[in-house]
Formats: sequence, structure tokens, C-alpha cells
Amino acid sequence: MIILGIDPGFGITGYGVIEYRANNFKMLEYGVISTKSTERFTSRLIQISDKIEELIAKYNPDAVAIEELFFNNNAKTVIAAAQGRGVAVATCAKHYIPVFEYTPLQVKQNITGYGRADKKQIQMMVKMLLKLNEIPKPDDAADALAIAMCHAHSMMFSKPI
Amino acid sequence: MIILGIDPGFGITGYGVIEYRANNFKMLEYGVISTKSTERFTSRLIQISDKIEELIAKYNPDAVAIEELFFNNNAKTVIAAAQGRGVAVATCAKHYIPVFEYTPLQVKQNITGYGRADKKQIQMMVKMLLKLNEIPKPDDAADALAIAMCHAHSMMFSKPI
Repeated sequence: MIILGIDPGFGITGYGVIEYRANNFKMLEYGVISTKSTERFTSRLIQISDKIEELIAKYNPDAVAIEELFFNNNAKTVIAAAQGRGVAVATCAKHYIPVFEYTPLQVKQNITGYGRADKKQIQMMVKMLLKLNEIPKPDDAADALAIAMCHAHSMMFSKPI
Repeated sequence: MIILGIDPGFGITGYGVIEYRANNFKMLEYGVISTKSTERFTSRLIQISDKIEELIAKYNPDAVAIEELFFNNNAKTVIAAAQGRGVAVATCAKHYIPVFEYTPLQVKQNITGYGRADKKQIQMMVKMLLKLNEIPKPDDAADALAIAMCHAHSMMFSKPI
């Protein structure tokens, strides 16, 4: 099955597409949707929607896995990121692709087996499990791949949102 | 010109459509998009998007005015409301309708001329300016009409987001 992982942000939204078959992973594509703060808010939302449309058309994913958003110290950033996340989720839902969400802790535990693993340890596991030559860059893309893999391991116990 | 006002929420999103011509207002439609907490998150986002699509098709608004979201005590609610707001804004932007945002304070000051006006005073002004027989219910719908009227009065000074 094909899984699209999304690490929601606003300035940067990470994405990663993987194939999971017979307990094996294959990386298909990863990257980030990067929008500029000088651009209009509406244009930035549309760019997120358009890129996800493009990935859906290209890979026809069986499932989408997206990280849950939590409040941090910057309310403005979280509110902007949440709006981008809503657009990303609605875009997938319009194509009838089931969407699953995981907390950062679930992703960590799932990928490394250890809830207190740091970013570097997760990235090393992503590189290893996907048999890549290097750690995917930027971090948001690596995170998105980790979320997609987390879903591959967890789907038997997860309900679509 | 036709203005669609939106009061973003998640369980309840208020909307109000007005016509503004020669310094006069006419109410065309108001109501709420009400989604149940027992429904799937994706389904709730799609309902917001679908209803806004329907209003756009019916009234072909020249502008959309939406309230700015602020962090309150319930981070979970704000994050959900922001996701709904993102979907609402993106839906309008996809139809190339300019979207404008106003803070609750701007709406208050604009409609009542008084920044510390209470909900009731705003609702009385909405009723009066739109020549309605009663105060629009529920509050979210009255708020959406107020936001639309605020834009009618402010558009010379506002930039689309």
C-alpha cells in the first residue's frame, strides 16, 4: 500500500510518500511545501492544497497519515499551521482517502521503540528503514516519512479521523 | 456588492450574506453550519467546505469577510476552529473571491462605534441596520452578518489576505 505522510506547518509543510509491502518500506518521494511569508495567506493555503492534489494524482495513496497539532508558545504560528492542516486534511478527504493522525510521541515510540528518542535518532531510523543513502532533508520531510511509517506499523489499531 | 460574512468555529460556523448598495444593507441569507462531535473530523471539514461552495454558487459574492481567530483558554477548540477556518478561506480563494479578515474589536467598533459594546448591543445594531424584525439567531449567524457589514464599511481601507 501507498501512504502519504504529512508534517503540518505553515511556512513549511513536510510530505513523504512510501510504499509498504511485506513488511518492507520503499521511499517514493519526499519534500516540503514551502511558502513565503511575503505571499498572501490565501495563496499559501492554495499552494498546500495544490501540492497535495498533485501528490494524490501521482501516487493515489491508500491512506494519509498526519501529525496531530499541539499548542506551543506561539499561538499565532499554531493557528496558521492549523489552518494549513485543515486544508491538507480536507483535500485528502475530498478524494475519499482515509486520514489518520498520530501524536509526535506515537511516531517516536513507533519508529525508535523509545518515547524519549531525539530528532536525530528518529532520522537515523528513517534513513535505515527506507534504505536511504542519507538522512532526508529538511527535517520536516524526514518527519513526514516517519509519520507515514508510523501508520504502516499502526494501521491495524488506528481509526480514520 | 454582495458580501459573505463568516464567523469561524468548528462545531458551529456562522454565515451571513448581505447586499450593500448606496450605503444601504439588505440581508440575503444567514445561518450556521452545524456539525456534530460524533461525526468524523474529515466529514465535518467537508461539510464546511460544501456549504460555502453552495453559498458561493447561489450568491456569487464579491468579497468574503471572516473573523480573525485568537487563542483562548481551550487550545483544542482553537486548533479545531482554525482547521475549519483554513478550509473556509481556501474554498473562497479557489473561487478567486477576495477574503478579508477583521478582529472582533474591529467588528464591534465598526458596527456600534464603541469598542466595548457587548454582544447584545452588536446584535441590536445588526437587526436595525439590516431592517430585520428580530435579532438573527443563533449568535454565530448574527456575528457573521456583523462581520459582513464591517467589511462593507471598511473595504476602502482593507487589503485581502
